[in-house]
Amino acid sequence: MTEHIYLDSAASTPVADEVIVEMLPYMKQQYGNPSSIHRFGRETTRAIKLARKRVAEMIGSMAREITFTSGGTEADNLALKGAAVHVRSRTPGKNRIITSSIEHDAVLEQCRDLEGMGFAVTYLPVTGEGLVRSADLKDALSKDVLLVSIMFANNEVGTVQPAKELAEIAHQAGTLFHTDAVQAAGKIPINVKSLGVDMMSMSSHKINGPKGVGALYIRSGLEIAPIIHGGGQESELRSGTENVPGIAGFGKACELAAKRMDQYKEHVEGLRDYLIERVAKEIPHSRLNGSRIDRIPNNAHFTFFGVNGEDLIIKLDENGIAASTGSACSVKKQKPSHVLKAMGFSYEEITGSLRLSLGMQNTKEEIDMTVGALSSIVKELRELSPFKSKYA
Amino acid sequence: MTEHIYLDSAASTPVADEVIVEMLPYMKQQYGNPSSIHRFGRETTRAIKLARKRVAEMIGSMAREITFTSGGTEADNLALKGAAVHVRSRTPGKNRIITSSIEHDAVLEQCRDLEGMGFAVTYLPVTGEGLVRSADLKDALSKDVLLVSIMFANNEVGTVQPAKELAEIAHQAGTLFHTDAVQAAGKIPINVKSLGVDMMSMSSHKINGPKGVGALYIRSGLEIAPIIHGGGQESELRSGTENVPGIAGFGKACELAAKRMDQYKEHVEGLRDYLIERVAKEIPHSRLNGSRIDRIPNNAHFTFFGVNGEDLIIKLDENGIAASTGSACSVKKQKPSHVLKAMGFSYEEITGSLRLSLGMQNTKEEIDMTVGALSSIVKELRELSPFKSKYA
Repeated sequence: MTEHIYLDSAASTPVADEVIVEMLPYMKQQYGNPSSIHRFGRETTRAIKLARKRVAEMIGSMAREITFTSGGTEADNLALKGAAVHVRSRTPGKNRIITSSIEHDAVLEQCRDLEGMGFAVTYLPVTGEGLVRSADLKDALSKDVLLVSIMFANNEVGTVQPAKELAEIAHQAGTLFHTDAVQAAGKIPINVKSLGVDMMSMSSHKINGPKGVGALYIRSGLEIAPIIHGGGQESELRSGTENVPGIAGFGKACELAAKRMDQYKEHVEGLRDYLIERVAKEIPHSRLNGSRIDRIPNNAHFTFFGVNGEDLIIKLDENGIAASTGSACSVKKQKPSHVLKAMGFSYEEITGSLRLSLGMQNTKEEIDMTVGALSSIVKELRELSPFKSKYA
Repeated sequence: MTEHIYLDSAASTPVADEVIVEMLPYMKQQYGNPSSIHRFGRETTRAIKLARKRVAEMIGSMAREITFTSGGTEADNLALKGAAVHVRSRTPGKNRIITSSIEHDAVLEQCRDLEGMGFAVTYLPVTGEGLVRSADLKDALSKDVLLVSIMFANNEVGTVQPAKELAEIAHQAGTLFHTDAVQAAGKIPINVKSLGVDMMSMSSHKINGPKGVGALYIRSGLEIAPIIHGGGQESELRSGTENVPGIAGFGKACELAAKRMDQYKEHVEGLRDYLIERVAKEIPHSRLNGSRIDRIPNNAHFTFFGVNGEDLIIKLDENGIAASTGSACSVKKQKPSHVLKAMGFSYEEITGSLRLSLGMQNTKEEIDMTVGALSSIVKELRELSPFKSKYA
């Protein structure tokens, strides 16, 4: 019997053994500063070079198009502010960013900061499934737009956007296109060249790499401004002594993710579909949210009517099951999900929501146990609910 | 016999075994996202809380006055831009920062960025030993100054500034005081309360902690603006999923550093003084740079006249000894040290410079071997030099 069932892989994942093995030498033996010219420095420089190649190979880019950051949030911030500040300084008329209303806070809060700096931001609406409509982007584009930033896959409901089509529309209007692929990179095949994006954010700890590291793909030839200033590391784009063990670990995680892509789809998507199917059959007054088709393999997001999602999480946790109401990053703020609001959800639909996100370590037995626990917890909570008669 | 002698501890240090032991559980077992409300999330939240307490104890602050960042560079950037943006938004007349001409690039390049944003920056001169004069700070202070930022100890020549006195002068003029203590925190006793600084930057990998993590002490009650925006972690001051293993490791490194402070001084300063003494006696036309008294325990910085410092490093490296000409962060740029220039050094004095920085792992035998190698390499290089007759 499993003691703990972790179904919050969209929030973070365990670091793979091979990744830890890759990291340790850069803590104990090869601990030089990559900027040093002696042997200790050269060894760490080589480690970063190898990691850059591995990240690049996972997404079909050139190694020099990868800039390491401290994580997905910093990558998003760098893409948005870096492009905004640089482009406006060259072309003063360009002053507007278009994004969607369901982006991660790393994009939305950066947009708010840019608004404070005098930039204008357009927030596109989405469909009930969380999809951005091409027509809405076309309508929003104007001469003052310098960047379109639309996430690849949503962190709450898992909806995958038509990034290739949206990037084409942006390019036809002469503007740059960035995508936050933190939930998608390493989970589904992505080739940045055929996708045609100018920038793409990635995170290590979502794909069994260490926390504290991420990367921004920046198309060769595209110039942006740095947001962290100092020694000029990462080709002047990201100053600060490189997190060598973290970068080496992220590189290894990308290599592993690229190799297991088919296996990941088969295992994780297989379990996820089994979960969705059983919930639909066995738990009345429940609903899958987001798109059934345009969806990352590891995400299942439900509304259980007549239940409070946070009570559900606490009860599941008591049963040894780790789940989430939505974004890990905003749950402590206890504000209703901006994603579900933008998808047109009612207060009741938002309140009853639960995200179960899977990883390679999950098993069929765990899903069976989860559905069993979920069934009885939902029933129990509904019996305590003031709306008892409606759903019991 | 030692195979490799590492004398570049000012650039980076090996991660202590106890620190690695502290980090590993947060990679393999307790890999939750601290923002998650389930067990996995709570465990990582506890780890961060403990680390915050340990960092705070090392510098005599309260735990809630510690904000974790991705390193010393980001801490410096956050202090400077965070204070500048926040203070100017409240008090439009406050528009100037005073710093010194020998700061790390993490401060100087951030100042240049702020100049681009319309802020004014005054760069104070230093003495031949690299000390900021109180009188110069007093003269430079005016009503428009919002922040004084003077480093605690210089990364190249090791000079320790009179931070307490400078902070008092700044406060008397009604302005904030920040110090970049990346080279000092954990090496010499620092109590931020008796020091009286408003903000202080620290780095983990300079004190046997992991790379990719640092912290900014921000005096309770002082408000500054964030520079990375998103999920609102670190009390809204530093967004992005927390680097839990890194933060836990940094906390442990601070605990170890605080405990070994006396031992560090005895061992490292003892070896350093022995090194300085032997070089002075045995290598002619050499000179110690910086202050003999106001100096961090692990720094020895020399000029060997008639020799090129980079040739010296390469030859030392061939002999298995890792050294530096100065800041690791700028050596690859091959620009003459701005620190030595500001100290009034001639081109020849700068060219012949070498930094040997020590750590707990160094031994007397290593210093003996280093002085032996240095003696013969300096002699050899002088014989090849066009100034041979002058120094041979």
